Amino acid sequence: MARPSHREKLLTEGLGVVHAQGYVGASVRDIVQAAGVPQGSFTNHFTSKEAFGLEVLDLYFEKTCEGFQSTLLNDSLKPLDRVAAYIDLNIKRLRSFELHKGCMYGNLAAEASDHSEPIRLRLVEIFGEIQKSIEGCLKAAIKDGDLAPKTKAGETAGFILSSLQGAILMAKTTRSTLPIERFRKILFASVLHD
Amino acid sequence: MARPSHREKLLTEGLGVVHAQGYVGASVRDIVQAAGVPQGSFTNHFTSKEAFGLEVLDLYFEKTCEGFQSTLLNDSLKPLDRVAAYIDLNIKRLRSFELHKGCMYGNLAAEASDHSEPIRLRLVEIFGEIQKSIEGCLKAAIKDGDLAPKTKAGETAGFILSSLQGAILMAKTTRSTLPIERFRKILFASVLHD
Repeated sequence: MARPSHREKLLTEGLGVVHAQGYVGASVRDIVQAAGVPQGSFTNHFTSKEAFGLEVLDLYFEKTCEGFQSTLLNDSLKPLDRVAAYIDLNIKRLRSFELHKGCMYGNLAAEASDHSEPIRLRLVEIFGEIQKSIEGCLKAAIKDGDLAPKTKAGETAGFILSSLQGAILMAKTTRSTLPIERFRKILFASVLHD
Repeated sequence: MARPSHREKLLTEGLGVVHAQGYVGASVRDIVQAAGVPQGSFTNHFTSKEAFGLEVLDLYFEKTCEGFQSTLLNDSLKPLDRVAAYIDLNIKRLRSFELHKGCMYGNLAAEASDHSEPIRLRLVEIFGEIQKSIEGCLKAAIKDGDLAPKTKAGETAGFILSSLQGAILMAKTTRSTLPIERFRKILFASVLHD
Protein backbone atom coordinates (compact mmCIF):
# COMPACT_ATOMS: atom_id res chain seq x y z
CA MET A 1 0.00 0.00 0.00
CA ALA A 2 1.27 3.46 -0.88
CA ARG A 3 2.26 5.71 2.00
CA PRO A 4 -0.44 8.32 2.60
CA SER A 5 0.48 11.64 1.06
CA HIS A 6 0.70 14.83 3.09
CA ARG A 7 -2.57 15.84 1.49
CA GLU A 8 -4.29 12.64 2.64
CA LYS A 9 -2.87 12.98 6.14
CA LEU A 10 -4.04 16.57 6.37
CA LEU A 11 -7.56 15.53 5.37
CA THR A 12 -7.93 12.42 7.52
CA GLU A 13 -6.26 13.86 10.63
CA GLY A 14 -7.76 17.31 9.97
CA LEU A 15 -11.25 15.79 9.91
CA GLY A 16 -10.67 14.53 13.44
CA VAL A 17 -9.45 17.95 14.56
CA VAL A 18 -12.39 19.81 12.98
CA HIS A 19 -14.84 17.29 14.44
CA ALA A 20 -13.35 17.61 17.94
CA GLN A 21 -12.55 21.34 18.02
CA GLY A 22 -15.02 22.79 15.55
CA TYR A 23 -14.30 24.55 12.27
CA VAL A 24 -13.50 27.92 13.84
CA GLY A 25 -11.65 26.35 16.77
CA ALA A 26 -9.41 24.18 14.56
CA SER A 27 -6.43 26.29 13.53
CA VAL A 28 -4.26 25.43 10.54
CA ARG A 29 -1.45 24.89 13.06
CA ASP A 30 -3.58 22.32 14.96
CA ILE A 31 -4.37 20.52 11.72
CA VAL A 32 -0.76 20.47 10.52
CA GLN A 33 0.45 19.22 13.92
CA ALA A 34 -2.17 16.44 14.02
CA ALA A 35 -1.16 15.36 10.52
CA GLY A 36 2.53 15.46 11.43
CA VAL A 37 3.46 17.25 8.20
CA PRO A 38 5.45 20.44 7.57
CA GLN A 39 3.54 23.70 8.13
CA GLY A 40 3.97 24.66 4.45
CA SER A 41 2.10 21.52 3.29
CA PHE A 42 -1.26 23.04 4.09
CA THR A 43 -0.94 25.97 1.71
CA ASN A 44 0.63 23.68 -0.89
CA HIS A 45 -2.49 21.56 -0.98
CA PHE A 46 -5.36 23.89 -0.04
CA THR A 47 -5.97 27.44 -1.22
CA SER A 48 -7.71 28.36 2.06
CA LYS A 49 -9.12 26.93 5.27
CA GLU A 50 -12.53 27.09 3.61
CA ALA A 51 -11.31 24.97 0.67
CA PHE A 52 -9.93 22.51 3.23
CA GLY A 53 -13.23 22.56 5.14
CA LEU A 54 -15.13 21.67 1.99
CA GLU A 55 -12.85 18.69 1.34
CA VAL A 56 -13.19 17.56 4.95
CA LEU A 57 -16.96 17.71 4.52
CA ASP A 58 -16.70 15.52 1.41
CA LEU A 59 -14.56 13.00 3.30
CA TYR A 60 -17.07 12.91 6.18
CA PHE A 61 -19.88 12.49 3.66
CA GLU A 62 -18.08 9.45 2.21
CA LYS A 63 -18.32 7.88 5.67
CA THR A 64 -21.99 8.85 5.87
CA CYS A 65 -22.61 7.12 2.54
CA GLU A 66 -20.80 3.98 3.75
CA GLY A 67 -23.20 4.00 6.71
CA PHE A 68 -26.16 4.18 4.30
CA GLN A 69 -25.27 0.72 2.91
CA SER A 70 -26.14 -1.04 6.17
CA THR A 71 -29.07 1.27 6.97
CA LEU A 72 -31.09 3.52 4.63
CA LEU A 73 -30.05 1.66 1.46
CA ASN A 74 -30.07 -1.84 2.97
CA ASP A 75 -32.62 -3.79 0.93
CA SER A 76 -32.38 -6.78 3.24
CA LEU A 77 -34.25 -4.76 5.89
CA LYS A 78 -37.88 -3.68 5.71
CA PRO A 79 -38.10 0.03 4.74
CA LEU A 80 -39.01 1.40 8.18
CA ASP A 81 -36.40 -0.84 9.80
CA ARG A 82 -33.83 0.90 7.59
CA VAL A 83 -34.77 4.24 9.14
CA ALA A 84 -34.55 2.71 12.62
CA ALA A 85 -31.14 1.23 11.75
CA TYR A 86 -29.95 4.67 10.61
CA ILE A 87 -30.99 6.23 13.92
CA ASP A 88 -29.31 3.36 15.80
CA LEU A 89 -26.11 3.89 13.78
CA ASN A 90 -26.10 7.52 14.94
CA ILE A 91 -26.46 6.37 18.55
CA LYS A 92 -23.60 3.90 18.04
CA ARG A 93 -21.35 6.57 16.52
CA LEU A 94 -22.05 9.01 19.30
CA ARG A 95 -21.23 6.29 21.85
CA SER A 96 -17.93 5.66 20.03
CA PHE A 97 -17.11 9.36 20.68
CA GLU A 98 -18.09 8.90 24.34
CA LEU A 99 -21.03 11.27 23.83
CA HIS A 100 -18.74 14.05 22.61
CA LYS A 101 -18.30 15.62 19.17
CA GLY A 102 -21.84 14.99 17.89
CA CYS A 103 -22.59 15.21 14.17
CA MET A 104 -20.07 17.27 12.19
CA TYR A 105 -22.80 18.47 9.80
CA GLY A 106 -24.79 19.87 12.70
CA ASN A 107 -21.71 21.47 14.25
CA LEU A 108 -20.72 23.13 10.98
CA ALA A 109 -24.31 24.20 10.37
CA ALA A 110 -24.33 25.90 13.77
CA GLU A 111 -20.94 27.57 13.66
CA ALA A 112 -19.95 27.94 10.00
CA SER A 113 -23.11 28.42 7.96
CA ASP A 114 -23.21 32.15 8.69
CA HIS A 115 -19.52 32.59 7.86
CA SER A 116 -18.88 30.51 4.77
CA GLU A 117 -21.46 30.47 2.00
CA PRO A 118 -19.71 27.57 0.18
CA ILE A 119 -19.79 25.45 3.36
CA ARG A 120 -23.44 26.36 3.99
CA LEU A 121 -24.39 25.41 0.42
CA ARG A 122 -22.49 22.12 0.64
CA LEU A 123 -24.31 21.33 3.90
CA VAL A 124 -27.65 22.04 2.22
CA GLU A 125 -26.71 19.58 -0.54
CA ILE A 126 -25.59 16.91 1.94
CA PHE A 127 -28.67 17.30 4.14
CA GLY A 128 -30.70 17.04 0.90
CA GLU A 129 -28.98 13.73 0.04
CA ILE A 130 -29.69 12.28 3.49
CA GLN A 131 -33.30 13.48 3.34
CA LYS A 132 -33.71 11.87 -0.10
CA SER A 133 -32.46 8.53 1.23
CA ILE A 134 -34.89 8.67 4.16
CA GLU A 135 -37.68 9.65 1.76
CA GLY A 136 -36.86 6.57 -0.35
CA CYS A 137 -37.45 4.35 2.70
CA LEU A 138 -40.74 6.05 3.51
CA LYS A 139 -41.99 5.69 -0.08
CA ALA A 140 -41.05 2.01 -0.06
CA ALA A 141 -42.90 1.60 3.26
CA ILE A 142 -46.00 3.20 1.76
CA LYS A 143 -45.75 0.86 -1.22
CA ASP A 144 -45.45 -2.14 1.11
CA GLY A 145 -48.47 -0.99 3.11
CA ASP A 146 -46.41 -0.34 6.24
CA LEU A 147 -47.10 3.39 6.20
CA ALA A 148 -50.38 5.21 5.47
CA PRO A 149 -50.66 6.23 1.78
CA LYS A 150 -51.52 9.78 2.90
CA THR A 151 -48.03 10.18 4.44
CA LYS A 152 -46.09 12.95 2.76
CA ALA A 153 -42.78 11.16 2.34
CA GLY A 154 -40.61 14.21 1.54
CA GLU A 155 -42.01 16.35 4.33
CA THR A 156 -41.76 13.53 6.86
CA ALA A 157 -38.19 12.74 5.77
CA GLY A 158 -37.25 16.39 6.33
CA PHE A 159 -38.84 16.22 9.77
CA ILE A 160 -36.87 13.07 10.62
CA LEU A 161 -33.61 14.62 9.42
CA SER A 162 -34.01 17.83 11.43
CA SER A 163 -35.36 16.12 14.55
CA LEU A 164 -32.47 13.66 14.51
CA GLN A 165 -30.02 16.57 14.24
CA GLY A 166 -31.65 18.19 17.27
CA ALA A 167 -31.63 14.92 19.20
CA ILE A 168 -27.92 14.36 18.48
CA LEU A 169 -27.16 17.94 19.56
CA MET A 170 -29.10 17.45 22.79
CA ALA A 171 -27.45 14.05 23.37
CA LYS A 172 -24.01 15.62 23.04
CA THR A 173 -24.99 18.42 25.41
CA THR A 174 -26.48 16.16 28.07
CA ARG A 175 -23.87 13.39 27.52
CA SER A 176 -26.67 10.87 27.20
CA THR A 177 -28.17 9.01 24.24
CA LEU A 178 -31.62 9.41 25.83
CA PRO A 179 -32.69 12.31 23.52
CA ILE A 180 -32.04 10.15 20.43
CA GLU A 181 -33.75 7.11 21.95
CA ARG A 182 -36.76 9.29 22.89
CA PHE A 183 -36.93 10.70 19.37
CA ARG A 184 -36.77 7.17 17.89
CA LYS A 185 -39.55 5.97 20.19
CA ILE A 186 -41.93 8.87 19.51
CA LEU A 187 -41.17 8.81 15.79
CA PHE A 188 -42.23 5.19 15.45
CA ALA A 189 -45.08 5.37 17.97
CA SER A 190 -46.69 8.51 16.49
CA VAL A 191 -45.35 9.91 13.23
CA LEU A 192 -44.67 6.63 11.42
CA HIS A 193 -47.43 4.74 13.21
CA ASP A 194 -50.42 4.73 10.90
CA MET B 1 -32.17 56.60 33.27
CA ALA B 2 -28.60 55.87 34.34
CA ARG B 3 -25.99 55.55 31.61
CA PRO B 4 -25.20 51.89 30.98
CA SER B 5 -21.96 50.83 32.65
CA HIS B 6 -19.06 49.34 30.73
CA ARG B 7 -20.05 46.00 32.20
CA GLU B 8 -23.62 46.30 30.88
CA LYS B 9 -22.39 47.40 27.45
CA LEU B 10 -19.98 44.47 27.28
CA LEU B 11 -22.81 42.07 28.07
CA THR B 12 -25.51 43.48 25.81
CA GLU B 13 -23.24 44.18 22.83
CA GLY B 14 -21.18 41.06 23.51
CA LEU B 15 -24.33 38.93 23.37
CA GLY B 16 -24.91 40.19 19.82
CA VAL B 17 -21.31 39.40 18.87
CA VAL B 18 -21.41 35.88 20.35
CA HIS B 19 -24.77 35.21 18.70
CA ALA B 20 -23.53 36.39 15.29
CA GLN B 21 -19.96 35.06 15.35
CA GLY B 22 -20.18 32.13 17.73
CA TYR B 23 -18.49 31.70 21.09
CA VAL B 24 -15.15 30.58 19.67
CA GLY B 25 -15.32 33.07 16.79
CA ALA B 26 -16.04 36.06 19.04
CA SER B 27 -12.71 37.41 20.29
CA VAL B 28 -12.43 39.62 23.37
CA ARG B 29 -11.24 42.36 20.96
CA ASP B 30 -14.45 42.00 18.88
CA ILE B 31 -16.56 42.22 22.04
CA VAL B 32 -14.73 45.25 23.41
CA GLN B 33 -14.95 47.02 20.04
CA ALA B 34 -18.69 46.33 19.71
CA ALA B 35 -19.24 47.67 23.23
CA GLY B 36 -17.10 50.75 22.52
CA VAL B 37 -15.28 50.46 25.84
CA PRO B 38 -11.55 50.40 26.66
CA GLN B 39 -9.83 47.04 26.12
CA GLY B 40 -8.97 46.79 29.84
CA SER B 41 -12.66 46.88 30.79
CA PHE B 42 -13.16 43.27 29.87
CA THR B 43 -10.64 41.89 32.34
CA ASN B 44 -11.85 44.38 34.95
CA HIS B 45 -15.34 42.89 34.82
CA PHE B 46 -14.86 39.24 33.81
CA THR B 47 -12.26 36.79 35.05
CA SER B 48 -12.25 34.91 31.73
CA LYS B 49 -14.05 34.58 28.41
CA GLU B 50 -15.83 31.58 29.92
CA ALA B 51 -17.11 33.67 32.83
CA PHE B 52 -18.30 36.24 30.29
CA GLY B 53 -19.93 33.49 28.20
CA LEU B 54 -21.87 32.27 31.24
CA GLU B 55 -23.20 35.79 31.92
CA VAL B 56 -24.13 36.22 28.26
CA LEU B 57 -26.06 32.94 28.52
CA ASP B 58 -27.91 34.27 31.57
CA LEU B 59 -28.80 37.47 29.72
CA TYR B 60 -30.07 35.50 26.73
CA PHE B 61 -32.07 33.28 29.08
CA GLU B 62 -33.73 36.42 30.54
CA LYS B 63 -35.01 37.14 27.02
CA THR B 64 -36.16 33.54 26.67
CA CYS B 65 -38.12 33.87 29.91
CA GLU B 66 -39.71 37.12 28.71
CA GLY B 67 -40.84 35.18 25.63
CA PHE B 68 -42.40 32.53 27.89
CA GLN B 69 -44.91 35.10 29.21
CA SER B 70 -46.71 35.39 25.87
CA THR B 71 -46.29 31.71 25.01
CA LEU B 72 -45.61 28.74 27.31
CA LEU B 73 -46.77 30.54 30.46
CA ASN B 74 -49.65 32.45 28.85
CA ASP B 75 -52.77 31.30 30.71
CA SER B 76 -55.05 33.18 28.31
CA LEU B 77 -54.22 30.59 25.65
CA LYS B 78 -55.26 26.93 25.68
CA PRO B 79 -52.32 24.73 26.74
CA LEU B 80 -51.48 23.31 23.31
CA ASP B 81 -51.87 26.77 21.74
CA ARG B 82 -49.13 27.93 24.14
CA VAL B 83 -46.76 25.37 22.64
CA ALA B 84 -47.74 26.48 19.12
CA ALA B 85 -47.19 30.12 20.12
CA TYR B 86 -43.73 29.23 21.43
CA ILE B 87 -42.79 27.60 18.11
CA ASP B 88 -44.20 30.62 16.24
CA LEU B 89 -42.14 32.97 18.42
CA ASN B 90 -39.03 31.05 17.38
CA ILE B 91 -40.00 31.47 13.72
CA LYS B 92 -40.56 35.19 14.29
CA ARG B 93 -37.18 35.59 16.01
CA LEU B 94 -35.36 33.77 13.26
CA ARG B 95 -37.08 36.00 10.67
CA SER B 96 -35.94 39.07 12.64
CA PHE B 97 -32.36 37.78 12.13
CA GLU B 98 -33.09 37.30 8.41
CA LEU B 99 -32.71 33.53 8.86
CA HIS B 100 -29.19 33.93 10.27
CA LYS B 101 -27.79 33.33 13.76
CA GLY B 102 -30.30 30.67 14.84
CA CYS B 103 -30.70 29.82 18.53
CA MET B 104 -27.73 30.77 20.70
CA TYR B 105 -28.30 27.76 22.97
CA GLY B 106 -28.06 25.41 20.00
CA ASN B 107 -24.98 27.17 18.68
CA LEU B 108 -23.21 27.03 22.04
CA ALA B 109 -24.28 23.40 22.49
CA ALA B 110 -22.69 22.56 19.13
CA GLU B 111 -19.47 24.51 19.45
CA ALA B 112 -18.81 25.05 23.16
CA SER B 113 -20.22 22.07 25.06
CA ASP B 114 -17.08 19.99 24.43
CA HIS B 115 -14.77 22.83 25.46
CA SER B 116 -16.33 24.40 28.52
CA GLU B 117 -17.88 22.19 31.16
CA PRO B 118 -19.48 25.19 32.99
CA ILE B 119 -21.16 26.35 29.75
CA ARG B 120 -22.32 22.81 28.96
CA LEU B 121 -23.80 22.41 32.45
CA ARG B 122 -25.54 25.78 32.24
CA LEU B 123 -27.01 24.79 28.86
CA VAL B 124 -28.30 21.53 30.39
CA GLU B 125 -30.01 23.60 33.13
CA ILE B 126 -31.52 26.04 30.64
CA PHE B 127 -32.74 23.30 28.31
CA GLY B 128 -34.21 21.66 31.42
CA GLU B 129 -36.11 24.86 32.27
CA ILE B 130 -37.54 25.14 28.75
CA GLN B 131 -38.48 21.46 28.75
CA LYS B 132 -40.23 21.87 32.10
CA SER B 133 -42.31 24.78 30.76
CA ILE B 134 -43.34 22.74 27.72
CA GLU B 135 -44.14 19.79 30.01
CA GLY B 136 -46.40 22.09 32.06
CA CYS B 137 -48.44 22.88 28.94
CA LEU B 138 -48.74 19.21 28.01
CA LYS B 139 -49.88 18.26 31.52
CA ALA B 140 -52.48 21.04 31.43
CA ALA B 141 -53.66 19.82 28.01
CA ILE B 142 -54.04 16.28 29.38
CA LYS B 143 -56.05 17.67 32.33
CA ASP B 144 -58.28 19.62 29.91
CA GLY B 145 -58.84 16.51 27.81
CA ASP B 146 -57.01 17.98 24.81
CA LEU B 147 -54.27 15.38 24.92
CA ALA B 148 -54.55 11.63 25.54
CA PRO B 149 -54.01 10.74 29.23
CA LYS B 150 -51.44 8.12 28.17
CA THR B 151 -49.16 10.88 26.82
CA LYS B 152 -45.86 10.95 28.68
CA ALA B 153 -45.59 14.70 29.21
CA GLY B 154 -41.91 14.85 30.20
CA GLU B 155 -40.72 12.59 27.41
CA THR B 156 -42.82 14.40 24.82
CA ALA B 157 -41.62 17.80 26.05
CA GLY B 158 -38.03 16.63 25.64
CA PHE B 159 -38.83 15.48 22.13
CA ILE B 160 -40.39 18.87 21.30
CA LEU B 161 -37.39 20.74 22.69
CA SER B 162 -34.81 18.72 20.77
CA SER B 163 -36.81 18.59 17.54
CA LEU B 164 -37.32 22.35 17.65
CA GLN B 165 -33.57 22.83 18.12
CA GLY B 166 -32.93 20.68 15.07
CA ALA B 167 -35.58 22.52 13.04
CA ILE B 168 -34.09 25.93 13.94
CA LEU B 169 -30.62 24.66 13.00
CA MET B 170 -31.90 23.38 9.66
CA ALA B 171 -33.84 26.62 9.07
CA LYS B 172 -30.69 28.66 9.62
CA THR B 173 -28.73 26.38 7.28
CA THR B 174 -31.31 26.43 4.47
CA ARG B 175 -32.26 30.10 5.07
CA SER B 176 -35.91 29.09 5.21
CA THR B 177 -38.43 28.75 8.02
CA LEU B 178 -39.86 25.67 6.29
CA PRO B 179 -38.12 23.15 8.60
CA ILE B 180 -39.76 24.78 11.66
CA GLU B 181 -43.16 25.01 9.98
CA ARG B 182 -42.88 21.37 8.93
CA PHE B 183 -41.97 20.35 12.50
CA ARG B 184 -44.93 22.34 13.86
CA LYS B 185 -47.32 20.72 11.40
CA ILE B 186 -46.19 17.13 12.04
CA LEU B 187 -46.03 17.70 15.80
CA PHE B 188 -49.66 18.76 15.98
CA ALA B 189 -50.92 16.34 13.31
CA SER B 190 -49.21 13.25 14.80
CA VAL B 191 -47.49 13.53 18.15
CA LEU B 192 -49.97 15.83 19.91
CA HIS B 193 -52.94 14.55 17.94
CA ASP B 194 -54.66 12.00 20.09
